Amino acid sequence: MTDFDEKALALHKQHGGKMSVESKVTLDSKADLSVAYTPGVAAVSKAIADDPSLLYEYGSKGNLVAVISDGSAVLGLGNVGPEAAYPVMEGKSLLFKRFAGVDSVPLVLGTQNPDEVVKIVTALAPGFGGINLEDIAAPACFEVLEKLEKNLKIPVFHDDQHGTAIVCLAGLINALKVVGKGKEAKIVINGAGAAGVAIAKLLHTYGFSNMIILDSKGAIYQGRSDYMNPIKEELALHTNSSKKMGSLGDVIPSADVFIGVSRAGLMTQDMVKSMAEKAIVIAMANPDPEITEAEAKEAGAAVVATGRSDSPNQLNNVLVFPGLFRGALDARIEQFTEDMFIKAAEALAALVPNPSADKIIPSPFEEGVAEAIAGVIS
Amino acid sequence: MTDFDEKALALHKQHGGKMSVESKVTLDSKADLSVAYTPGVAAVSKAIADDPSLLYEYGSKGNLVAVISDGSAVLGLGNVGPEAAYPVMEGKSLLFKRFAGVDSVPLVLGTQNPDEVVKIVTALAPGFGGINLEDIAAPACFEVLEKLEKNLKIPVFHDDQHGTAIVCLAGLINALKVVGKGKEAKIVINGAGAAGVAIAKLLHTYGFSNMIILDSKGAIYQGRSDYMNPIKEELALHTNSSKKMGSLGDVIPSADVFIGVSRAGLMTQDMVKSMAEKAIVIAMANPDPEITEAEAKEAGAAVVATGRSDSPNQLNNVLVFPGLFRGALDARIEQFTEDMFIKAAEALAALVPNPSADKIIPSPFEEGVAEAIAGVIS
Repeated sequence: MTDFDEKALALHKQHGGKMSVESKVTLDSKADLSVAYTPGVAAVSKAIADDPSLLYEYGSKGNLVAVISDGSAVLGLGNVGPEAAYPVMEGKSLLFKRFAGVDSVPLVLGTQNPDEVVKIVTALAPGFGGINLEDIAAPACFEVLEKLEKNLKIPVFHDDQHGTAIVCLAGLINALKVVGKGKEAKIVINGAGAAGVAIAKLLHTYGFSNMIILDSKGAIYQGRSDYMNPIKEELALHTNSSKKMGSLGDVIPSADVFIGVSRAGLMTQDMVKSMAEKAIVIAMANPDPEITEAEAKEAGAAVVATGRSDSPNQLNNVLVFPGLFRGALDARIEQFTEDMFIKAAEALAALVPNPSADKIIPSPFEEGVAEAIAGVIS
Repeated sequence: MTDFDEKALALHKQHGGKMSVESKVTLDSKADLSVAYTPGVAAVSKAIADDPSLLYEYGSKGNLVAVISDGSAVLGLGNVGPEAAYPVMEGKSLLFKRFAGVDSVPLVLGTQNPDEVVKIVTALAPGFGGINLEDIAAPACFEVLEKLEKNLKIPVFHDDQHGTAIVCLAGLINALKVVGKGKEAKIVINGAGAAGVAIAKLLHTYGFSNMIILDSKGAIYQGRSDYMNPIKEELALHTNSSKKMGSLGDVIPSADVFIGVSRAGLMTQDMVKSMAEKAIVIAMANPDPEITEAEAKEAGAAVVATGRSDSPNQLNNVLVFPGLFRGALDARIEQFTEDMFIKAAEALAALVPNPSADKIIPSPFEEGVAEAIAGVIS
């Protein structure tokens, strides 16, 4: 057990959870009750009954997001269930508030059936201004997101897909600046779950053309016969044009960029050594990366980033989702678009005008991060 | 539009909702993030994955209630839908916090299908220590409550049923003391929705034997052929033994107690005048009672109570649900029982040791109300 683990267990136990619900109004007299509650609240309900969109003005809807997980893919821990997902969702809620002033509610679901998740979230939507899905496993997450976007007129975000993809692209833009490479860079993405698929799609849209994606069975290519699905078939159309086969060890030699969204320890120092000169290693498995920062540097990587809070180049979604929802709520958009995601990545990268090996991404505590991201949505 | 209405609309608009979500922990450095969020939170998730009941200790579950409505029977406004229900649910959440320190989350559902409501609430339960159902119409509310109590091992309360019944019984106990009457009192309950049914059941269990309940078609009696359902059939077994028929005007003469859980204006001054000497009028329709306090007094009622915040004898659920959940969460009970409800009513009544016509119930702002109610659960 690490120092962080012990401190985290103690902190969570001390407070019995990390969040509280607080009143914005005074409730010290019957007169206060008559206004905040009955009978006065009836006038508010009547007004909203006539025009449900007034909940944005008379309720929290304009600043309230549901943070929802079914506990099927929590951090790098896997399918640990709803209760174990709760502290992570609660953590996301804290970050929403801390970094963008967004109120949010952690909700963990006792079902992992995609259709049921869709039904539940659809039913919950009237009270919320946005939905942030977290830690839902692939491939269910793709179906859930697509169906929810069809059902709802409030923005739905799957943080593990697009939050990760945006922060990864932002880091990559600056890392490539540091090493003087461009869109021709050879990129190997290890992991074809929610994050890997979204990263591959966003990087493709952005203009990277030389990519290989691997799942647990190895490199994905057009015509591979086993362990394929419609999502992977689509990925294969735009990646691995030379149809390389094999494991990470087989395809990583000469790569300019490694992007890991898989599991701790899957990247070795020998693999880093086999990469091209000035290699970029982005190891985002959480909480423990595919290769530690120290090991990757020792093996010669020019730029290293991980998802950990204790890493100087921390590529963590916290840089993205608070500001993105701030912008979405303020502009009251009905849906996120890939164009917004690319603009968000560019805005995030631009916050470090002179990137270096030890500084490709701003710290979440720097001023203006959420504002910069929010500003791309209008 | 009343003064309360205008003030309520202004208050709700000013704040954009009445509640916010706040952090209990400091988040000012990467070290803070490492403990409250990743990587430290993974240790907390792992511990809970091994033993989900640890969420009571490491999460908010031990102090967190979901306040859930489908918007089908909001206040006395009726089926106004989920958005319009929201400010009322948010109000309940404020009261939970203000009067018993209970954190809660207002959730409004875009479905009124009882089976779907049951599925949704069942799926949401893992993150919560209790479920408070609000403003769900009869008869769906009976089915929803019964099924949820079967599905869940956390306490489920339907405030419109049992919150109302408990506060009504508490007020009645003291009102009868004031007029010197007892369990033989003739009681007429107008309204056979969620509240009316629960009141009739609780009063029967408490020992009142002379009751008539009316629905919108008139007095309910054994063998009535129209507009009956299994719930009403059961009520008819224990009430209206002389099988009186007719409207409120027909059955109210000589009654000692009127209990209204119906609609504004349904009780007239002539009806009050037709009641027995020292009549008790409990007019709980919300926000506007069956007869105003002033009118009922003018017509000769000895004791009058309504549900309004501006009434001296305010029989409002706010006296009950915060303390009841405080007790349920602290004792970590799996289900509420009718015995707890009766003890809660007695504890509430006992807080006014010398009741008078103008004081049959404590104010929610008096010290010790929630504690007294919480104390009956162990």
